[in-house]
Amino acid sequence: MSKSDFWPIPGDRLVDIATPMPVIDEDRLAANIGRVQAYMDQHGRRFRPHIKTHKNASIARQQMHAGAVGINCQKLSEVEIFANAGFEDILLTYNVLGAAKLQRLKLLNARVPKLSVTVDNVTALSGLADTFEPARPLNVLVECDTGGGRCGVQTPEAAHALATIVAASPGLSFGGIMTYPGIGRATDVESFMAMTLRLLGQSNIACPVVSSGGTPDLFQAHLVPSATEHRAGTYVFNDRSTDRCGHCTSDDFALHVLATVVSRPTASRAILDAGSKALTSDLFGFEDHGTIVGFKGARIVSLSEEHAMVDLQHCPIEFAEVGEVVRIMPNHACVIANLFDRLVFHRDDIVTRIETVDARGAVW
Amino acid sequence: MSKSDFWPIPGDRLVDIATPMPVIDEDRLAANIGRVQAYMDQHGRRFRPHIKTHKNASIARQQMHAGAVGINCQKLSEVEIFANAGFEDILLTYNVLGAAKLQRLKLLNARVPKLSVTVDNVTALSGLADTFEPARPLNVLVECDTGGGRCGVQTPEAAHALATIVAASPGLSFGGIMTYPGIGRATDVESFMAMTLRLLGQSNIACPVVSSGGTPDLFQAHLVPSATEHRAGTYVFNDRSTDRCGHCTSDDFALHVLATVVSRPTASRAILDAGSKALTSDLFGFEDHGTIVGFKGARIVSLSEEHAMVDLQHCPIEFAEVGEVVRIMPNHACVIANLFDRLVFHRDDIVTRIETVDARGAVW
Repeated sequence: MSKSDFWPIPGDRLVDIATPMPVIDEDRLAANIGRVQAYMDQHGRRFRPHIKTHKNASIARQQMHAGAVGINCQKLSEVEIFANAGFEDILLTYNVLGAAKLQRLKLLNARVPKLSVTVDNVTALSGLADTFEPARPLNVLVECDTGGGRCGVQTPEAAHALATIVAASPGLSFGGIMTYPGIGRATDVESFMAMTLRLLGQSNIACPVVSSGGTPDLFQAHLVPSATEHRAGTYVFNDRSTDRCGHCTSDDFALHVLATVVSRPTASRAILDAGSKALTSDLFGFEDHGTIVGFKGARIVSLSEEHAMVDLQHCPIEFAEVGEVVRIMPNHACVIANLFDRLVFHRDDIVTRIETVDARGAVW
Repeated sequence: MSKSDFWPIPGDRLVDIATPMPVIDEDRLAANIGRVQAYMDQHGRRFRPHIKTHKNASIARQQMHAGAVGINCQKLSEVEIFANAGFEDILLTYNVLGAAKLQRLKLLNARVPKLSVTVDNVTALSGLADTFEPARPLNVLVECDTGGGRCGVQTPEAAHALATIVAASPGLSFGGIMTYPGIGRATDVESFMAMTLRLLGQSNIACPVVSSGGTPDLFQAHLVPSATEHRAGTYVFNDRSTDRCGHCTSDDFALHVLATVVSRPTASRAILDAGSKALTSDLFGFEDHGTIVGFKGARIVSLSEEHAMVDLQHCPIEFAEVGEVVRIMPNHACVIANLFDRLVFHRDDIVTRIETVDARGAVW
């Protein structure tokens, strides 16, 4: 028996499929894609969805069809997989380091019509400069830390300094500046990017792209006038974290995880068959591991690898019995597809299609 | 380019392979397997390793070769995969529910020489009783909650009641009692199991197996004289959690995750290329996401999906530079193999073999 024998087929009812299983509502998915693209179009921002959330070429094609300019990948192996799937404009927002990865990047640049990568340090930049040639230059953006506290140069002056090296490297072309700002930093982003643009202008270095990102503040993208493009991933599914920050409501959650009640050991405890290998352990500031649709007050207090422990003490409704299927709204949708080989789509709880998680496990 | 192009081959040096990558030390793996089996042999306990930690048939064969009586799986799909790999004595410690899964279980029982499952409720038990037939009965153990607070009947009387139903079901044979006790509960386990055995004895129900489990208290298995067998998974790799509870030292960690420093944005911050999609978000009571070998005081304070943020404020040693590879000791080894398609083994930092994570993603 192969692993594939328990996948559903179109026409199956959701209540009949194997659990735990992430399921995607076609209509909510399309609405999420459409709403964000419309906002970006309205405000003149190019939009570049991040594929980390779904890792699936068919959803990325839906995003492109809606008007996205290209896609955003986080790892080189994701770029390879999406290049194989025919995507022609890919931004890799990661420092690429080491001879082997640089050679893989060179092979990609030879066949992807528009490939761009980011750098935030001279070691990574030297590797790129030594690898690429004027006959087929690589497009390079400089990553800026505008307050997110992850990667990125710390000042506009440092961004300008790296950009100057890029612009002077025969095998590279300067593609612009990029940031992943975290939440509530529109003012910081604008200030950093505008200052960097001024410095670049003084050096006569053209800056074609100013790329900002993130789902939580997506609908404030117009508050960063310097930005030309926005990147976001989570918006396509949404989850408790994007609900909490006001980006959406739970009616916009396109991804749920179906789970079966496998045990009711005590009156106040239920056990589901979805553990950390189906939901991940991402808390994202929540104290529980997801919300169970229709059972307000039932709290997923802990996960082991294949079980969810549900505390029913504050659930006034009679909880589902052993064998019944419940629907979990996850804390963080972006990490769930990566645990599964395929994604199950549905409309009105009838399976519509099954798609491969093309870049599952692609972390290199 | 397929996903497999960046896997190393035997003879490669660890410092040259793509990161992030979990790597397994052959000698430590063999020592962990040998030490635990020797203890179990010494104390007359049959030992049944849990495959959830590695999900790999070759390591399970090493465990069998050392003297294990069979394997423990947590999900039906894991049983299917290990049955395909030739394993003949498999205990599935999970309530199997629903017509589709019951039929899969029936197919398995027809071909696995010794297959056992657990139940803790009458719904699951009725499903089994209705599915199996005297010509090929299913071996069923009753799961007991001896204080772990997950699945399991709550009292010896309830265990006896379920066992009585199993014993009276023509298609089932009563295989014994089982518990996953959590930490520090040898006395609770012994008390629950001894009382259950007494009740079963009074009803003339033979109880061939009393199965306890867990790595943290593994070396106290002899303090549960009623037990005939012990199950454990994590011991095969070990991790910060089994170190903390005194089961091992960090010299017994067989699995590390290699990661590359990709950015040094500030003097006190380094960024690694291993995020929650390589390490998982499991904190297991720790406040950081793993220990970096050789850099005491460097703390992995947060993970995003593809980055680890390292705080160097309290690291007195000069930290690794951009492009250098570091070695992470994970909080919880049991969830890492499941994120990868293959496992890389090494001896003295030279790759010895690559094995498939056979049951990766098998959560159904």
